[in-house]
Amino acid sequence: MLNPQENALADKIRRLKRESGTHSPSIYTLLSEIHDLKIKIDACFLSNPFATDLFMKYFTKDLIETQEIRKVLEFYPSQNQSLASTLSPLLNVPSENIFLGNGATEIIQALLHRFAKKKMLINLPTFSPYYEFARPDVEVLFNTLSKHQDFRLDKSPFLDLIRQHRPDTVVIINPNNPDGGYIPKSMLNSLLGELTAVDNVIVDESFVHFAYEEGSDALISNHDLFMRFPNVSLVKSMSKDFGIAGIRAGYAVMAKEKVKELLKNGYLWNISGLAEYFFRLFIKDEFQKSYEPLRLRHIRATKDFFKLLNAIPEIKVYPSKSNFFLMEVINGQTSDDVALELLLRHGIYTRSCNDKKGLEGQFIRVASRSEEENAAIIHALKEVLQTVKV
Amino acid sequence: MLNPQENALADKIRRLKRESGTHSPSIYTLLSEIHDLKIKIDACFLSNPFATDLFMKYFTKDLIETQEIRKVLEFYPSQNQSLASTLSPLLNVPSENIFLGNGATEIIQALLHRFAKKKMLINLPTFSPYYEFARPDVEVLFNTLSKHQDFRLDKSPFLDLIRQHRPDTVVIINPNNPDGGYIPKSMLNSLLGELTAVDNVIVDESFVHFAYEEGSDALISNHDLFMRFPNVSLVKSMSKDFGIAGIRAGYAVMAKEKVKELLKNGYLWNISGLAEYFFRLFIKDEFQKSYEPLRLRHIRATKDFFKLLNAIPEIKVYPSKSNFFLMEVINGQTSDDVALELLLRHGIYTRSCNDKKGLEGQFIRVASRSEEENAAIIHALKEVLQTVKV
Repeated sequence: MLNPQENALADKIRRLKRESGTHSPSIYTLLSEIHDLKIKIDACFLSNPFATDLFMKYFTKDLIETQEIRKVLEFYPSQNQSLASTLSPLLNVPSENIFLGNGATEIIQALLHRFAKKKMLINLPTFSPYYEFARPDVEVLFNTLSKHQDFRLDKSPFLDLIRQHRPDTVVIINPNNPDGGYIPKSMLNSLLGELTAVDNVIVDESFVHFAYEEGSDALISNHDLFMRFPNVSLVKSMSKDFGIAGIRAGYAVMAKEKVKELLKNGYLWNISGLAEYFFRLFIKDEFQKSYEPLRLRHIRATKDFFKLLNAIPEIKVYPSKSNFFLMEVINGQTSDDVALELLLRHGIYTRSCNDKKGLEGQFIRVASRSEEENAAIIHALKEVLQTVKV
Repeated sequence: MLNPQENALADKIRRLKRESGTHSPSIYTLLSEIHDLKIKIDACFLSNPFATDLFMKYFTKDLIETQEIRKVLEFYPSQNQSLASTLSPLLNVPSENIFLGNGATEIIQALLHRFAKKKMLINLPTFSPYYEFARPDVEVLFNTLSKHQDFRLDKSPFLDLIRQHRPDTVVIINPNNPDGGYIPKSMLNSLLGELTAVDNVIVDESFVHFAYEEGSDALISNHDLFMRFPNVSLVKSMSKDFGIAGIRAGYAVMAKEKVKELLKNGYLWNISGLAEYFFRLFIKDEFQKSYEPLRLRHIRATKDFFKLLNAIPEIKVYPSKSNFFLMEVINGQTSDDVALELLLRHGIYTRSCNDKKGLEGQFIRVASRSEEENAAIIHALKEVLQTVKV
């Protein structure tokens, strides 16, 4: 239970949360509006902190020490299609199939506004922009994943729903947000094989760098999907795996006719100078080689984190192949109270999911961070959940 | 005339130009594709270089020296409406009338895609995205401004065209790009008074910080237009006056219903962490006070530049109240040759306008830069135009 002083702060946080709609208020907003608040660990933001360290090393060396940063900020960046040719060799995809976005959210918006026509099917729970960004004339249907089946996407009811309602657009987030449920490559392929009659299938792989197949942690890549399934648009955020959400960078791979239609009347200079710098760094062999061990380290830290979370009896932790976990508070406390106590008493910012469409119960989403931060989260959680009496 | 070696480089430049459509290739693209090229002065990019100096000073002090830069790049930025409330006091406009964009080009795209319905009227010459971004189902009509009238917007044929064709959307860029023609405040007001039957009037003031009314160089502000004319959307780029095109930052002031419609299904995190930093700096009194003398200095440098340009007999320079000039080469040389010689022999990058819709003749647009750079441009121009024999 919160004490009166904590309750006053909690009221302010609740107000800011309401003002942010279905998203969490930014750290900046929280800290600038609530001066008494200290955030030590941001376990709300789903990123690999080791990758941010690596990016900052390159950024400092390439742009700050050389003073090249001025050019990056002063001049117009390159155009979308010019950067697409830069990415093309790394992705092994022709540049005319690549579309770059000011974050994956811009790409989601572009795909939904331009290509979703009448009906769209989305799994629940989901990343809310997928239904919020739909045009008002598009009907949004939901396929609700059940917590009793660990939020697994069950092929047959999903396909039944599609056969029954014939949506022109279907969204598959893999791994899914907020639960981290993962559809293995072979199953995804067979699923897409059943969706060839759907005009647009959006496969959002924003968290795929944290996923792994049975027996191997090798990087999963589905950049070639569009060749077998021309109706598939693969969406990829750079914010999570590279820990650079502030830069706003994402890309998509899709049929060249779609890229052409998007570029025909917009998206000219939507990539900032810094995002351009990031993409030019991203394609470098040296950068990829330094990044890979950090990706693997984060996967290991996340697997270890799961074991520790799973041993806490007051929560049920759902299986995830991403760098976050959906946990259900089952000791009678509300998810809001637990999240607020974590924040106010321990400076740990998590995501209470009581406003998430399709989630029935007391859910909190917690990001995996560094090994030390994860240990601190476990310790704080045990205190708040009273596993450890204080 | 170009020599064979210059001609080989010129061919590469022409190819890059073609690939960039109606825009100039970025400095990065030019330099990385043509290794023999040296750009000393970028007089293609229309910005105030003194403002970039000022921004870099704050950026270094606030973000680099403190290492705060990591937070700006790592975390999600604030949402659009939260930043609108930050800007509200400075603009003296309620936050629900403010929409922030990833550069003014994103705002232009949003306004045209969402609100232009069937017919749209644009003055020519213009900033090409205004007609390129129109939806394919929108008819674009042009009101061609005549070089024989110094590209002045003549009220009566303009209004006749509107009465005859009844466009739902009308675009006024003030000062206009690429000629710099300026409609004084009182005339703009009377013009807008005649356009109340038009659904959307877009007034693009991206260059207004460089403009001045008769007898005063005071900053011109039309942020209150939407109160008298609810059909007006005022668009403002930050790239030019603050010299930060790489950051991608712009805003618009419009009817709150329009802002609401745009935010209802998109534009959630379209402002990057660095653009957020810029906007938070922009509203500071201290920053505004340091910026104002630099704005005035740039206006003075530009007025002096005009006098020197105007004294060159081989060109006709058109009146401009922005920080650039449209000049017509009248000595028989082509604008392409002059621009290429400026670039290849003097490292001065200007904009040959032979591909600009609505311009008949040999036009080059040249930006005003610092006093020293302007002097170097004048010197080079005289050599290329053979005012001075070499």
